[in-house]
Amino acid sequence: MPETKVKKSEDFNEWYNEIVELADLCDKRYPIKGMNIWRPYGWKLMNNVDRLIRDEMIKTNHEEVCFPLLIPESFFKKEEEHIEGFGKEVFWVTHAGINQLEERWLLRPTSETAMYPIFSLWIRSHTDLPLKTFQIVNTFRYETKQTRAFIRVREIHFFEAHTCHVDFEDAERQIKEDKEIAHRLLQKLCLPYVFSKRPEWDKFAGAYYTISIDVLMSSGRTLQIGSIHQYRDNFAKPYEISYETEKGAHAFCHQTTYGMSERLLGALVGVHGDNKGLIIPPEVAPLQVVIIPIIFKGKEKGVLEASETLHKKLLHEGIRSHIDDRETTPGNKYYDWELKGVPLRVEIGPKDVEKNELTMVRRDISKKKSVPLKDAEKAIQAELQALVQTIYANAEKLLNENMHSVLTAEEAKEKTGIVALPWCGNKDCALEIENVLEGNTLGEPIENAVCTDPCPVCGARAKTWMRFAKSY
Amino acid sequence: MPETKVKKSEDFNEWYNEIVELADLCDKRYPIKGMNIWRPYGWKLMNNVDRLIRDEMIKTNHEEVCFPLLIPESFFKKEEEHIEGFGKEVFWVTHAGINQLEERWLLRPTSETAMYPIFSLWIRSHTDLPLKTFQIVNTFRYETKQTRAFIRVREIHFFEAHTCHVDFEDAERQIKEDKEIAHRLLQKLCLPYVFSKRPEWDKFAGAYYTISIDVLMSSGRTLQIGSIHQYRDNFAKPYEISYETEKGAHAFCHQTTYGMSERLLGALVGVHGDNKGLIIPPEVAPLQVVIIPIIFKGKEKGVLEASETLHKKLLHEGIRSHIDDRETTPGNKYYDWELKGVPLRVEIGPKDVEKNELTMVRRDISKKKSVPLKDAEKAIQAELQALVQTIYANAEKLLNENMHSVLTAEEAKEKTGIVALPWCGNKDCALEIENVLEGNTLGEPIENAVCTDPCPVCGARAKTWMRFAKSY
Repeated sequence: MPETKVKKSEDFNEWYNEIVELADLCDKRYPIKGMNIWRPYGWKLMNNVDRLIRDEMIKTNHEEVCFPLLIPESFFKKEEEHIEGFGKEVFWVTHAGINQLEERWLLRPTSETAMYPIFSLWIRSHTDLPLKTFQIVNTFRYETKQTRAFIRVREIHFFEAHTCHVDFEDAERQIKEDKEIAHRLLQKLCLPYVFSKRPEWDKFAGAYYTISIDVLMSSGRTLQIGSIHQYRDNFAKPYEISYETEKGAHAFCHQTTYGMSERLLGALVGVHGDNKGLIIPPEVAPLQVVIIPIIFKGKEKGVLEASETLHKKLLHEGIRSHIDDRETTPGNKYYDWELKGVPLRVEIGPKDVEKNELTMVRRDISKKKSVPLKDAEKAIQAELQALVQTIYANAEKLLNENMHSVLTAEEAKEKTGIVALPWCGNKDCALEIENVLEGNTLGEPIENAVCTDPCPVCGARAKTWMRFAKSY
Repeated sequence: MPETKVKKSEDFNEWYNEIVELADLCDKRYPIKGMNIWRPYGWKLMNNVDRLIRDEMIKTNHEEVCFPLLIPESFFKKEEEHIEGFGKEVFWVTHAGINQLEERWLLRPTSETAMYPIFSLWIRSHTDLPLKTFQIVNTFRYETKQTRAFIRVREIHFFEAHTCHVDFEDAERQIKEDKEIAHRLLQKLCLPYVFSKRPEWDKFAGAYYTISIDVLMSSGRTLQIGSIHQYRDNFAKPYEISYETEKGAHAFCHQTTYGMSERLLGALVGVHGDNKGLIIPPEVAPLQVVIIPIIFKGKEKGVLEASETLHKKLLHEGIRSHIDDRETTPGNKYYDWELKGVPLRVEIGPKDVEKNELTMVRRDISKKKSVPLKDAEKAIQAELQALVQTIYANAEKLLNENMHSVLTAEEAKEKTGIVALPWCGNKDCALEIENVLEGNTLGEPIENAVCTDPCPVCGARAKTWMRFAKSY
């Protein structure tokens, strides 16, 4: 079988850059750096991921809204830390037609400063709370570093949930729910993950604390695919989001946000793909089954009919099936669909028809398996499930084999992936470890973080474990 | 029953402005003029309309893409007429962070100039044709006139199909398909419409010809809700979209576009609404049935159970149902759901339970009707269908009663709605009629346009009928 020019196992970064275009996910030839074109196959995949997110949001009583793209500079400037964090990363609209605007508007890098002045109008009383909203929109950040499709782009397909609560405790309950949502979603994408509480200096601009959600790519680098923020009343105060309590007093809301982005696609590509191309989990695969009729001149009796019958049965079962009847060799077809990561290939040739069989080939293991045509739907469902279990297990193995807890920087240097070290709580000690490891601080574990070993830098008794990794 | 403060029949414009917010479609308090917030109810309605469009696109083999929002000035400037038409209406991004951009970027007012340089890379051979794509995105236009929710806004929720063909004839076939799509879609929205071929001076900037799709609002003004454009090779030449023919020659593509926008919501509001609020066609209604349990203290035996049972049955049938069990009077509930245009209200009270009945009230006619609980699903489906027929018939009556063909400007002045007059083909004559009628040129009928009567301005023998109307 032909493979991609660059092997994933040899040069992950090059392989990644090549595969996203070869598999028709995106076109990177648009002339603005970091703004790529979603091709139909990639957009379908993204929409399928969005659908899972939307389903989770609806199940947990979030309501979908859509706020304007443009934010007046005066709105943006109300929360000091926020503007400090994002000020250098925003695009400014200064002119309309031939007129200069009286006030500059920015393209949302995230929507706090568009939404919160309006939340202050929507919320009057404790009976308006909790307010649970979300939107799926594109956001814009002026990346100056090297861009990478889905991972570091300037127009970002983004999901953001924003909630308002009566108090800190209710906001904490929301964060618990967000973690459960992330867990269910990432299970469906076959992506094992870690939650880490970001250190103070690396939390979201304006947040009280930030939980990052990271996956481990096959390159050994982590990719942050989402984050959950507790804002306390940090935004509610400057944006005046307050309510009347049951007793008639006035109180500020406590707020949370939960965001994920097209990086989820980057993770799907990077974690599951192999030298032949993508492997897409069936839950979000644009096509779950591709049927290839094997036709030799004059010997094709019944092949197309059997393919068509199976295709219709699968569609009826809600399986996204496609017949590839293009005029090219079966080999070329295998190549194309392996590149695109369709989880299951079905071949139906004259011999299969004679024996009332079909041949299935799972994308992840490439082993042929014959099953009677009459059991087709059941066998196909089972095979898709088997693929899910295998690619999840592979990803879990990758993560488990690359998560380490060690006591010294020396030991840490010999490890790949995510390394936890005792930490005294001092920023300088963490930055020193970053230097030694040429990596980044990922954050503390959110569970079982207690550690009493000495900090490997200053020797003081540690307060917690701190994770480090090379990251995208 | 309480009604909206302003009556539709008395002051359409005020009624419209009030109802879009009262019915929770949008919030107009965002501080940038013409950029409104989609509230959950309005966004659901818009998404339901988008779903119908998407279904039609998929059925006709269009593929969904998503192109970047920002367009480099140099891309935009390649087609001369286009820049002349849109140059004064675009928003410019000039700065990123603290840096001034080397080249200005504009926010797409429509996506020809973002897509076509890339189409020239995608299309190589006649086997790549036809290329049929669409996207659903927000577009931006610097409106200087008075804004109006959904009708005249600066951030526009927009659907745009872009196709490329081997020749003019194939592009013409696409336009035929577009007209059929528009017809099916507007039938589902219960919106009768007229196609008009725009005069030369009012066609889309860069088009060879433009067909506008207009509906008639209850105010007697027309609202253009979409357009279909034949570009011939007007864009293909400057953007170099060419292909190798079967014989090995090179030829330019012929292109079409078909666009519609959130104005469809404006039309739903304006055409179907009444003094009590919206009336939403079931096909796109966020809620199709609202069930109101009528509870008197101590007498509610079985009411909630019967409501719950019916609700589950309806959901199972794919009907979007909701139980309103808020602690407020039935009257308040009726008021809210009438405002929001839910097509059918079901009341279940103790007497209904006793008699194993329910009471249905259609939103459009407000007449009560009792049916046995056992026949509920069927009766509800039939009642929804009856509403569809009635609101369609009402809209059709409105349009038919307000379409006139007359021979003189005098007669035209006495008519409301759309007035057709003989036209010699001379621009000045059409503008003169516009002046007299204080209206706009809508365009020629695309069928049965032949007219040989004298032009009412210059007296020359007419070439066609020309339609005029006051429009939004």
